[in-house]
Amino acid sequence: METEDGSTVLEAARSVGIELESACGGQGTCGKCRVIVRGGMASEPDELERCLLSPGEMAEGVRLACRTKPEGGTLSVLVPRQSLAARQRIQLESESASFRPDPPLSVHRVRLAAEGAGASRADLDRLRAALEDSCGARLSGCEPHAAASLVRHLREGEEVDVLLRGGTLLEVGRPEQLSGTLGIAVDLGTSKIAMYLVELASARTISALGMENPQLSMGHDVISRLAAALRGEKEAGRLRGVVVEALNRGMSKLCRENGLPTRHILEICVVGNTAMHHIFLGLPVDRLAMSPFTPVLADPLELRADEVGLDAHPGARVFFPPPLAGFVGSDHLAAILASRLASRRGPALLVDLGTNTELSLKTPRGITCCSCASGPAFEGGCLRWGMRAAPGAVERVTVNEAGELKLWTVDGKGPRGLCGSGAMSALASLLGAGIVDAGGRMLVNDPRVTVEEEEPAFRIARAAGPTRNRGRWITLSQSDVRELQKAKGAVRAGVEMLLEHAGIREVAQVLLAGAFGSSLDIASALQTAMLAPVPASRIVQLGNAAGAGARELLCSVRARHRCSRLAREIDYLEPATYPRHELYFAAGMMLGEEAVQEFMSKWRKGRGREAEGHRGERRPSSEGGTLV
Amino acid sequence: METEDGSTVLEAARSVGIELESACGGQGTCGKCRVIVRGGMASEPDELERCLLSPGEMAEGVRLACRTKPEGGTLSVLVPRQSLAARQRIQLESESASFRPDPPLSVHRVRLAAEGAGASRADLDRLRAALEDSCGARLSGCEPHAAASLVRHLREGEEVDVLLRGGTLLEVGRPEQLSGTLGIAVDLGTSKIAMYLVELASARTISALGMENPQLSMGHDVISRLAAALRGEKEAGRLRGVVVEALNRGMSKLCRENGLPTRHILEICVVGNTAMHHIFLGLPVDRLAMSPFTPVLADPLELRADEVGLDAHPGARVFFPPPLAGFVGSDHLAAILASRLASRRGPALLVDLGTNTELSLKTPRGITCCSCASGPAFEGGCLRWGMRAAPGAVERVTVNEAGELKLWTVDGKGPRGLCGSGAMSALASLLGAGIVDAGGRMLVNDPRVTVEEEEPAFRIARAAGPTRNRGRWITLSQSDVRELQKAKGAVRAGVEMLLEHAGIREVAQVLLAGAFGSSLDIASALQTAMLAPVPASRIVQLGNAAGAGARELLCSVRARHRCSRLAREIDYLEPATYPRHELYFAAGMMLGEEAVQEFMSKWRKGRGREAEGHRGERRPSSEGGTLV
Repeated sequence: METEDGSTVLEAARSVGIELESACGGQGTCGKCRVIVRGGMASEPDELERCLLSPGEMAEGVRLACRTKPEGGTLSVLVPRQSLAARQRIQLESESASFRPDPPLSVHRVRLAAEGAGASRADLDRLRAALEDSCGARLSGCEPHAAASLVRHLREGEEVDVLLRGGTLLEVGRPEQLSGTLGIAVDLGTSKIAMYLVELASARTISALGMENPQLSMGHDVISRLAAALRGEKEAGRLRGVVVEALNRGMSKLCRENGLPTRHILEICVVGNTAMHHIFLGLPVDRLAMSPFTPVLADPLELRADEVGLDAHPGARVFFPPPLAGFVGSDHLAAILASRLASRRGPALLVDLGTNTELSLKTPRGITCCSCASGPAFEGGCLRWGMRAAPGAVERVTVNEAGELKLWTVDGKGPRGLCGSGAMSALASLLGAGIVDAGGRMLVNDPRVTVEEEEPAFRIARAAGPTRNRGRWITLSQSDVRELQKAKGAVRAGVEMLLEHAGIREVAQVLLAGAFGSSLDIASALQTAMLAPVPASRIVQLGNAAGAGARELLCSVRARHRCSRLAREIDYLEPATYPRHELYFAAGMMLGEEAVQEFMSKWRKGRGREAEGHRGERRPSSEGGTLV
Repeated sequence: METEDGSTVLEAARSVGIELESACGGQGTCGKCRVIVRGGMASEPDELERCLLSPGEMAEGVRLACRTKPEGGTLSVLVPRQSLAARQRIQLESESASFRPDPPLSVHRVRLAAEGAGASRADLDRLRAALEDSCGARLSGCEPHAAASLVRHLREGEEVDVLLRGGTLLEVGRPEQLSGTLGIAVDLGTSKIAMYLVELASARTISALGMENPQLSMGHDVISRLAAALRGEKEAGRLRGVVVEALNRGMSKLCRENGLPTRHILEICVVGNTAMHHIFLGLPVDRLAMSPFTPVLADPLELRADEVGLDAHPGARVFFPPPLAGFVGSDHLAAILASRLASRRGPALLVDLGTNTELSLKTPRGITCCSCASGPAFEGGCLRWGMRAAPGAVERVTVNEAGELKLWTVDGKGPRGLCGSGAMSALASLLGAGIVDAGGRMLVNDPRVTVEEEEPAFRIARAAGPTRNRGRWITLSQSDVRELQKAKGAVRAGVEMLLEHAGIREVAQVLLAGAFGSSLDIASALQTAMLAPVPASRIVQLGNAAGAGARELLCSVRARHRCSRLAREIDYLEPATYPRHELYFAAGMMLGEEAVQEFMSKWRKGRGREAEGHRGERRPSSEGGTLV
C-alpha cells in the first residue's frame, strides 16, 4: 500500500478500496489499524502509538495507519491480514475460496535425455520430445528470448522446469527457480490507479499500491480526458504515455519492495472504464465522445507487454477484458465477475457508485447494465464545503429526536468539510428532522438554517484546521441539496429503468461496489431512496470488487472465458434514450421512498391513459449529441 | 537493383544472382543489357552508349548496365524483363507460373449497414456482422492500430475493403485503397544481402536490391561471425543491430524508389544460413559453434516486425522458415522449395556452391541434405591471384589442341586476376592439356610453367589495369591447384556420401543454385569431376533459387506449410562424422572422373575385405570439437 499525497495511511488505503480495522474511527485509540512500514520515510510515531505498540513492534516498523503519514515522498507499507476490516477480510477470504487459480501459464518438470542420442536435433526438438514423453505436453513454438534459458539448461542434461504459455516456450530453469511467476492486476480509474502484485499460481496478493492517475493534470473527469485525446495524436499519445509511465513506476516499486526484479512479471491484467481502456490502447475515442457513445471494440485483447510499453518479462502479456459499452467499462465487468452476480439467487442489483455510476441488474432473463451520470457530488465535488474523504472530512451526521446534531469525521480530526458520504448523511438527517422536504426544499424555520449567498444553508459545524476557513461555518446549502438530489436521482432513475425493463418491481439483493459504495452509510442511502426499495439487510457492501475481479482475471483462464461469455450476453440499456427518461429522473430526485413511489405511481397512472395513443413507442426520445 | 560499391551495374546485378543479357560479354557493343536509372547519380554515358541508345531512351534514363557505374553513393536501376538473361527469364517465368500466390492476408469487400440499427454495438461488432453476412468471413480480433482505420471508414457507412490476417483485422480502407499490399523477401547471406520488393497478391517482383552484409567488418566468414557473437551480449547485439539497420535502409530505399511508404509493407520473409538466422533473431549461438553444431530451434517463426526492429506496417509480420541443421540454413530450404526438388522425376541433386556448399539429394526415399566446408576458393579467396567476379576477373580459360591459351574476362576488361569460375576453368584446361595430372601435381615440362616462391606456377596472362600489378604474370600456382582440389573435393565427397547413404550410384539431374553455381562453367566442373558423373545435359543452372524460394514463401501460405513439412522430413547427414569421411574427401580431390572412380573402387574393394571385422559400424569416427 503506497500513497503519494499527504493523507494518513488509513485514508490512503481507503482511497484504493482497502478498508482497515478502525474501531475508534481513526482516533488512534483502538490500535487495530496496525501496518508495517516497508520503505520510504514515515512521520515520527506519536504519543498514542508509543502507548499502544510494544518496543518489539516499533523495531519491526509496526505503526498505526491512522497516525502515520509519508514524510517527503512515497511510503510503502504492508497490511497484515488481521488489520483488514472484517467486511473485507471476509471478501478476500471468500474470493480466494471461490476460485481455483488457473493462470494462462503452465510449468512442467522434465528430465532431458543425454545429448548423444539426439545430437543432430535442434535443442528445441529435444525439449519437445522430452515434454511429450514425460508429461504429454505439446510444445508448439518458442519465443526467441526463451532460447537463451533453453541452451543454458539443456547443456546440463538435468531435470528442469519448463514454463509454457499455451504451447509456447517462455523459459527453462532449474526446478523451482523459474523467474516468471508474478502478475500485476491494474484497476485503471479516471482519478485513481490501484495496482496489485499477485503470485499467479496461488492468486495471493503480495502487495498493493494506489496512486493518482497522472492524467488528472490533463482533465479531471472522463469527458475532459476524451476532449484532450481528441485534440490530436500528440495529446492522445501524451495521455497514454503518462499512464504507461505510471504503471511502469508502480510495477517497479511493487517488485522492488519485495526484492524481486520486474522481469518476474509474466502476466498483467488491466481493467478500467471504456475511456481509460481506449486511451491506454491508443484506440480512437471519437465515437466515445458522441452519441450513441459506442466503443471501437468490445473484444477481450491480449497484447505483448512490450507492445503497450510495459516493462516486464520479455514474454509477458497484458490482458484487457472487454468493455461492455461506451460508459460501462471492463472494471464493471470485473466487478460483475467478482460479485458472482450472474449466479446470485433471485433478482440482484450491482451498483458501482461514482462520478459515473454503473448498474447491473440480474434477473432470470439475464443481466442488463446501464450507466448513470451521477456527477461529482458523491466524491464531494461541486458542493460548497465538499472535499474528498481526507482526514477532517465529515463522513456522518445524525440529528436525534431532540434535534441535536452529532458528527463524525475521517480519522476523528477537527471538521474541515463534507465528503460525499457525509453530505448524503447530512441530507438524510435533515430530511428526517423535517428541515428538508421530500421535494428537496430547505425550510428556513430551523435556527441553524441561515441565508448565505441568497440561499438557505444549514450550519453543521465550525471549520477547524489551519486554513483560512478556520472558524467559518461548514454548511449544507440549498444548491448542495440539489446537487445531491441530481446525483442520487440519476442512480435511482437507472435502477427504476432497469427494473421496468426487466418487468420486475423489487430485488432480493443490492450489492454495493467501489470505494464510495463501501463507505456510504446505508441508512442514509435508504432514507433518501437512493437505491431500491429493499431493507438494509439485503444490501451488501463488497469493497473494491473491480480490483478483486481484475486479480481473478489475472490468475484464471476460466474467469477470462466466463467474462468474455458474460460480455457477449450482458444487455446494455441506454438511459438517455429510454422512453421518458426525464420522468424517471424527476422521480429519482424525490427524497424518501414514499415520495419516489408516489411520483412514480401518479405518473404511471397518467401514462396508462396516454398509452392508448403511444402503444409500442420505444424509440429513443432524445437524439443525443456530442459530449465534447 | 542497387549497388553500394564501384562495380558496374552488370556486375552488381550478377552478384545478387540477376543475370542480364550480355552477348558481347560486357564490351558495350551488343546493347542488350539496357537498364533504366531510377535514382542516385550514375557515371556519364560514354561514346558506345551514345551510339547504341536513342535520344529518347537517353532522356528516359536508359543506360547499358556494362558501361554504367554509380557515382558517389548508391544507384537505383530498374531491369526491364527483356534485359534479363534467357536462362533467368525462363526461371522467373516458370516461377510465376509454378505457384499461385496465397499470401497470409485476405481482403474482403463489405458494405456496412447504416449506423442506426446497431447503434449501441461496438464498431468492431458491426464490421463483424457485415463480414459474416456478406462473405462468411470470421473476424476473431483486431490489432489496436487497425482501430483508427475502422473508425474512419465505418462512420461513412460505405463500401469498404477489409484486410485480415487469419481472422484478425489489420486495416479498413476505401475499395482498392488499402495500404498494406507489399512484401519484402530477404536472402540474408554471410557476405551479401539480397532484398526484393514484391506485390503480395500477384507475387510480382517490383524491385530488387543487393548490398554487402554490414557484419563483414566484424568477420568475413560464418565462423568469425559466430566468434564475434560469442564475445558477449553487446557484440551479439551489435551484429544484430547492423543487419536490422541495413534491412530498414534497404526497405526504405526499395519503397522510396517506387514512391511508396514503408508502412505499405505488410509481410517480410527472411531466409539465410543458420548462423545469420540465429544472430538476427538474437538466439544463442554457443551450440552452433561446437560439435555437433545444432541449432537452438528449427521451427518456423512468425514474429511482429516491430519486435525484430523492422519498420513496416504496424501489423506487419516477419516469417522465418526453419533452418535444416547447424550448417544447412533456411536459404537452402528455400532453394529446395524453388527448385521443386521434392517433385523432380528420378533421383536429383541440388547443389548450392559457396564457401559452404549445401547439397540435397532427392531419392524415392526422401531428401537428405548435407553441408561441405568448401572454403573460400570458389569465391576467389586464398588463391594467389584470386579475386571476386569483378570487371577484369578471368572467368574462363581454354587451351586448344595446339596448346594455345585463350581467356575471357568479366566485362571484357584487361585481366586483373582469377575469379572462382576462372580458376576452376584454368584448372580444367591444364588438366586437359596434361599440365596438371589427376593427382593435382603440376608438371614442369611446359614452358609456361615457372617456379615462383619455390613452387610451380602456370602463367595465364599479364595483368592489366592501373594497379602496381600491371605487367606482372597472373598465374595458377601449385598451391592454388591444391586449394581448388580441396574445395571441389569437399563437394564431391559430400555427393558421394549422399549417394552411398541413399544406396544409389547416379542421379537423373543436378540442379546448380546460387551465384557461383550460375556462373560456373559446366564443362570445367565435369572435367574436374566436381559434382557427380552425369552428362552436361543433365545439369541445370537455376540462378538464385534461395531468393526465388524466399519470394514464394513470402507470398504463399501453402508454400510455408510445404516448407515446414519438408523441414521435418528432410534428413541430415553430417559429413564430419560419416564413417571414413577422410577417404571420400581424398577420392573427391582427384581430378577427372576416371581418377575419382578408380580411387573409390580400389578403396571399396579394400573395404569389402575389412567389413568382416567392422560390420554395422556407423558411429561417428570423429568426435568433433569447438570451431571457434
